[in-house]
Amino acid sequence: MSEEQVRALRRVGRAWNRVSAAPSVWRRALPVEPDMGRFPPSAEPAPAWFGRLIPLPPLPGPGHATPPTGPAEPAEGAEPAREAGPADRAEAPEEAEAAANPRGAVLRRVLLGAPLASSAFVTERMRKLVALPVLSADALSSVAYGPEAMLTVLVLAGAAGLAYTFPVAAVIVFLMLAVGVSYRQTIRAYPHGGGSYIVAGDNLGPVAGLVAAAGLMTDYVLTVAVSIASGIAAITSALPGLTPWTVPLGVAVIVLLLAGNLRGIRQAGALFAAPTYAFVVAMFALIGAGLVDAAQDGFRAAPTPSVPVTEAVGLLLITRAFSSGATAMTGIEAISNAVPAFRPVEWRNARTTLTWMVGLLIAMFAGIVVLIHLTGVVPRSDETTLSQLAHLSFGQGWFYVYVQAATAAVLLLAANTAYNDFPRVLSLLARDDYAPKVFLRLGDRLAYSNSTVALSLAAALVYVAFDGRTGALIPLYAVGVFLAFTLSQSGMVVHWWRRRDPHWRKSLVFNATGAVLSGLVLLTAGVSKFTSGAWVALLAIAVFLLVTTRVHRHYATTREALRLRPHAVDLPARPGAGPLTPAVRAGSAADLRESEELPEEIRHLSVVAVATLDLAAMRTLAYAASLAQPVLVVHISTTEEEERRFRAYWSLWGDHLPLQTVLSPYRAVVAPLVHYIETLHRLNPGLTLTVILPEIVTRHRRHQFLHSRTAPRLRRSLRRLPKIVITTVPFHLPT
Amino acid sequence: MSEEQVRALRRVGRAWNRVSAAPSVWRRALPVEPDMGRFPPSAEPAPAWFGRLIPLPPLPGPGHATPPTGPAEPAEGAEPAREAGPADRAEAPEEAEAAANPRGAVLRRVLLGAPLASSAFVTERMRKLVALPVLSADALSSVAYGPEAMLTVLVLAGAAGLAYTFPVAAVIVFLMLAVGVSYRQTIRAYPHGGGSYIVAGDNLGPVAGLVAAAGLMTDYVLTVAVSIASGIAAITSALPGLTPWTVPLGVAVIVLLLAGNLRGIRQAGALFAAPTYAFVVAMFALIGAGLVDAAQDGFRAAPTPSVPVTEAVGLLLITRAFSSGATAMTGIEAISNAVPAFRPVEWRNARTTLTWMVGLLIAMFAGIVVLIHLTGVVPRSDETTLSQLAHLSFGQGWFYVYVQAATAAVLLLAANTAYNDFPRVLSLLARDDYAPKVFLRLGDRLAYSNSTVALSLAAALVYVAFDGRTGALIPLYAVGVFLAFTLSQSGMVVHWWRRRDPHWRKSLVFNATGAVLSGLVLLTAGVSKFTSGAWVALLAIAVFLLVTTRVHRHYATTREALRLRPHAVDLPARPGAGPLTPAVRAGSAADLRESEELPEEIRHLSVVAVATLDLAAMRTLAYAASLAQPVLVVHISTTEEEERRFRAYWSLWGDHLPLQTVLSPYRAVVAPLVHYIETLHRLNPGLTLTVILPEIVTRHRRHQFLHSRTAPRLRRSLRRLPKIVITTVPFHLPT
Repeated sequence: MSEEQVRALRRVGRAWNRVSAAPSVWRRALPVEPDMGRFPPSAEPAPAWFGRLIPLPPLPGPGHATPPTGPAEPAEGAEPAREAGPADRAEAPEEAEAAANPRGAVLRRVLLGAPLASSAFVTERMRKLVALPVLSADALSSVAYGPEAMLTVLVLAGAAGLAYTFPVAAVIVFLMLAVGVSYRQTIRAYPHGGGSYIVAGDNLGPVAGLVAAAGLMTDYVLTVAVSIASGIAAITSALPGLTPWTVPLGVAVIVLLLAGNLRGIRQAGALFAAPTYAFVVAMFALIGAGLVDAAQDGFRAAPTPSVPVTEAVGLLLITRAFSSGATAMTGIEAISNAVPAFRPVEWRNARTTLTWMVGLLIAMFAGIVVLIHLTGVVPRSDETTLSQLAHLSFGQGWFYVYVQAATAAVLLLAANTAYNDFPRVLSLLARDDYAPKVFLRLGDRLAYSNSTVALSLAAALVYVAFDGRTGALIPLYAVGVFLAFTLSQSGMVVHWWRRRDPHWRKSLVFNATGAVLSGLVLLTAGVSKFTSGAWVALLAIAVFLLVTTRVHRHYATTREALRLRPHAVDLPARPGAGPLTPAVRAGSAADLRESEELPEEIRHLSVVAVATLDLAAMRTLAYAASLAQPVLVVHISTTEEEERRFRAYWSLWGDHLPLQTVLSPYRAVVAPLVHYIETLHRLNPGLTLTVILPEIVTRHRRHQFLHSRTAPRLRRSLRRLPKIVITTVPFHLPT
Repeated sequence: MSEEQVRALRRVGRAWNRVSAAPSVWRRALPVEPDMGRFPPSAEPAPAWFGRLIPLPPLPGPGHATPPTGPAEPAEGAEPAREAGPADRAEAPEEAEAAANPRGAVLRRVLLGAPLASSAFVTERMRKLVALPVLSADALSSVAYGPEAMLTVLVLAGAAGLAYTFPVAAVIVFLMLAVGVSYRQTIRAYPHGGGSYIVAGDNLGPVAGLVAAAGLMTDYVLTVAVSIASGIAAITSALPGLTPWTVPLGVAVIVLLLAGNLRGIRQAGALFAAPTYAFVVAMFALIGAGLVDAAQDGFRAAPTPSVPVTEAVGLLLITRAFSSGATAMTGIEAISNAVPAFRPVEWRNARTTLTWMVGLLIAMFAGIVVLIHLTGVVPRSDETTLSQLAHLSFGQGWFYVYVQAATAAVLLLAANTAYNDFPRVLSLLARDDYAPKVFLRLGDRLAYSNSTVALSLAAALVYVAFDGRTGALIPLYAVGVFLAFTLSQSGMVVHWWRRRDPHWRKSLVFNATGAVLSGLVLLTAGVSKFTSGAWVALLAIAVFLLVTTRVHRHYATTREALRLRPHAVDLPARPGAGPLTPAVRAGSAADLRESEELPEEIRHLSVVAVATLDLAAMRTLAYAASLAQPVLVVHISTTEEEERRFRAYWSLWGDHLPLQTVLSPYRAVVAPLVHYIETLHRLNPGLTLTVILPEIVTRHRRHQFLHSRTAPRLRRSLRRLPKIVITTVPFHLPT
């Protein structure tokens, strides 16, 4: 709450002082039990596996959710925002259906594990040797498709094009170095995590932050799609018979990733550590074996293979090759986003891990490019370049199988980096009111379940739409990545310029170089590949910006509407709310707006809708009468005869409450009631109307359709009208 | 209302006398306007086309429905049941969505016409010359497939089988005569309509009535499917190129029939009169031309064609042929079901029409069988027998086209008979509590919209499942039809035996003959065709019986549960409901059951769920406090820090209402609230808990997902708990 709202709250409270004398009479007798202040009631944290099932109340369909009134205190997260750990944002698990369905809940436990309390969050951290494989799987695995993507462009110009392999690769390595160093600075400058979104937003303004976030989001979706496409390609290179199953296999992998990540972050780390290390071993073995072979030949390069020349060497070709090859560095930002997931001291551990990662990345990228040059391998559509290299070094033997398996595994799991980052960025956006608040909710395994599901859906859509072809996805990929890089590093330039820490000049030069190179890749990718797919990414970014700004505007309106307005309650109090008097009926203009009111200012009229004089109706009438406020009973008759009959029964009962019958010759029921209540409100704007409806509740849901749906339909229609409170009095059938 | 319930109502009213003194104070001042007693407010009936649109209130999503409390007085229809015209059952049109969506409402008007008031019902009757084609299209069109179905069986035994054509046909003609005479008796005995269901139920008991209804329902569904399949066959005989489109064409016809019947009965009659007459003309022309041709040949039968013999002549073959040929008389009962749709005097007009129909049916059936015998035509799979006959008489000329077109038209529209009868039988079942009450609702064109839609869905399902092949559907068809016939005529035997009107012996013999013959067909069809499809019909009938008895049991339980129980209110009144005292807290065992209560017996506790202290929460708190009943405010905190913070804000506000915070470390919100309220109820069973929830309402529905869904989820969870009233206080956002 802001200072101004706290003052407003105090003034509202003072206004209430005048009226809240009565409650103290019954206050002491209130049935508040001391052991009801905690849920689940047992104080110790839930034990493993079935711990959560025990404290759940034995009720059908409870369900869990965020607090009832709209966005949960967005202002709360605003001031300490960037300093707050994710534990502060922990809200509510998404498991209404699990609670409603005990069998579903058991299945959920078996699949996802026991729930974790919010206080467990801090222990859910990764040490460096786990964080390295988890967070760098994306970046390291990129060498499986990056060099190939670069060569695919260069080879279009034949031998003349391939001659540019080393220069282009050298620029990419330099770019990797520059970006890596830049992110080292970022990690120290932003020890509480947040990558391009935070850096760009802080230094270049919120719009730049949003654009960077848009780039990041498309990047994460495409990381999943591209990594899986490339991983499946590694498998189909070794087992060509699986090629027709490319799309279903990829979707199956997305489903597995979804399930794994709903279990939470630590398990994901342990699960995904092995393949990355296996891949690193495979790559160094491949490069080592290739270099030994080459050394035996005296490092003579293989003759340049003869390929059909379709394009001339030119700036456009070179830059396209550069931007394609630069996809080898996607994922390099993952660590800077995930600093809070490291064990303390977070920023130091993250920096060290980043250095290791960039070192490995450069070594592997350079080694593979050299190996390709030495062996004269050329990209083919039916076999990946890595598979060709492995065939050359290891033939068909078991080590070839190992290389392909490790490549596939690391690529399929590289997608997991996105599963760590996408929800984090989305939760930052939700915290800043740019995304729906549901993305703030932590599941009961402390994973952002909603974001995880959203990422899986988006990635599966892209993957299926592009038939799981890596080559078709690469043009989409570069735009988002380098948009985020460019903005992030530009932001760092501004950061250094403003802060002028020690060595700021060197850092600024590094970051400026990175920003210029990233911007160049972005420009190249956006222009030269626009028609071949980049337009999809640009469109997605534009839609993202549109939606996020709309969401932000809506939340701003909401917050403004929900602000306490003390002046409204400082109106002179009118005579106490008792029986309805004609003077009150006229209402006053001040009542027309929905503002806060004092209890004494509220004038009640209860409207009870009754169809027949059965037990449910009698209970509803008794409830309405017991509120000791004016009551009006409305009955809809479809014929005049029915109207007469109902009036007869009514006077037989004793005419205890005023009755109004409405004739509806077209047999409608909801429309006349809504019309009646709306007219009542228009004629008496000062009244708060409480519409009281009986509602039959069956024990089994399949029986509910045997009964009228009037109550829910009326509720849906009436909720749009102002100053109308809707009350349902359930009547429970034994079946 | 039954006498006993009226007495109960009076006693309940006397109990209220003790408590309802207060209301008279504010009663005179109630804002009841004289012009609000009718909806739509204008007194004259709605004019054509857009009449209904004007009186609709300018509100989003009103929607219409039956009265709020469960089944609308089933007891009401019970005593005068069979005497009551359908107008008494007219309840409410099914047009929630039309009202919610003005564009949809306009479309609806254009397609369906202006709404009709219930009082228009009696003018929606048919005169005989309209009723004949509408109600006999099914029966008359049956000659298009009946003779063919009979021959298809006989021809399996070659010439020896075909020799039985005339004897079998003669028995069928006799059966037609017997059943026709039987239904003449039925119409007079039951002038208010209702065919087999009423007759069997009245004379043989409710179970027999239900079984007959089950037969009728499957019959109607299959009438639609078989007629359309046969009609499409008539078209594809003339235009073989359309054969691959059999299924889509049939589904399109079902959709057209659905739309036509939603417009209401009179339009349907006018629309469907022409094809039936055209078909009768075509058949008599065909028979006449054939007889003239045969007369020129001296009535010598064509040589029996040589066909492969696959079965010997035997009782089984003959009876199978008989039961297949007997499908030519399906639909003969339509008129007796639809007596109330005739103009007054209904029963006399219906009888005359039935006589005409049976005469036409027998003449056409016999004529076609004779013609087949004379021409030596044999059934073929790619061309219908009628098409072969027409080819022989008229070659490829325009009269052949006319015959085929008329046959197709009458068959496609024969399905309409089912659209007249199915909803009527279903509404009778609903009136007797055997079917959901929604099937009692008349649409705003006075058609039973829900039944019409249900029939269309079922028929489309069967049609698609059997690929629209007439031959595959025939075995299913006979079972339901002859089950209903047998029970109806057995019922009439009992009727005559009991009543002994003049000429009862003759009637009894007629009916007994019909019952025995129908029973024979039923037995033959059920046994000999069990594996070839009759099992589907038998299974459908069994499922129907199961569901209807379950529905009946549920409604019986409901009525019992909703009965007024005056003894409950004769308990000694306890001290007035005022502030909550410890004595009241303990509750009493009598309160545990949900029975009617007197206002003074209700002890209130309002529970307000609040997440933040914003304007929506303050309005909800003010509403709760203004009810002048004890209030308890509950807040769910996910961390202890949040709990402390909320408590601080609460005391800052002034601590005007008692607050209970619940710590929910697993971040659930709905589950702890439900648990809390349930515990509160368990500890204080005497209290009526009113759970008051703020609910954010956005102007555009697409924004609603940006806000918490806690209120609706909590409502869903709480509605299962006893003695808990749920109140939502809407807060409307400007966007």
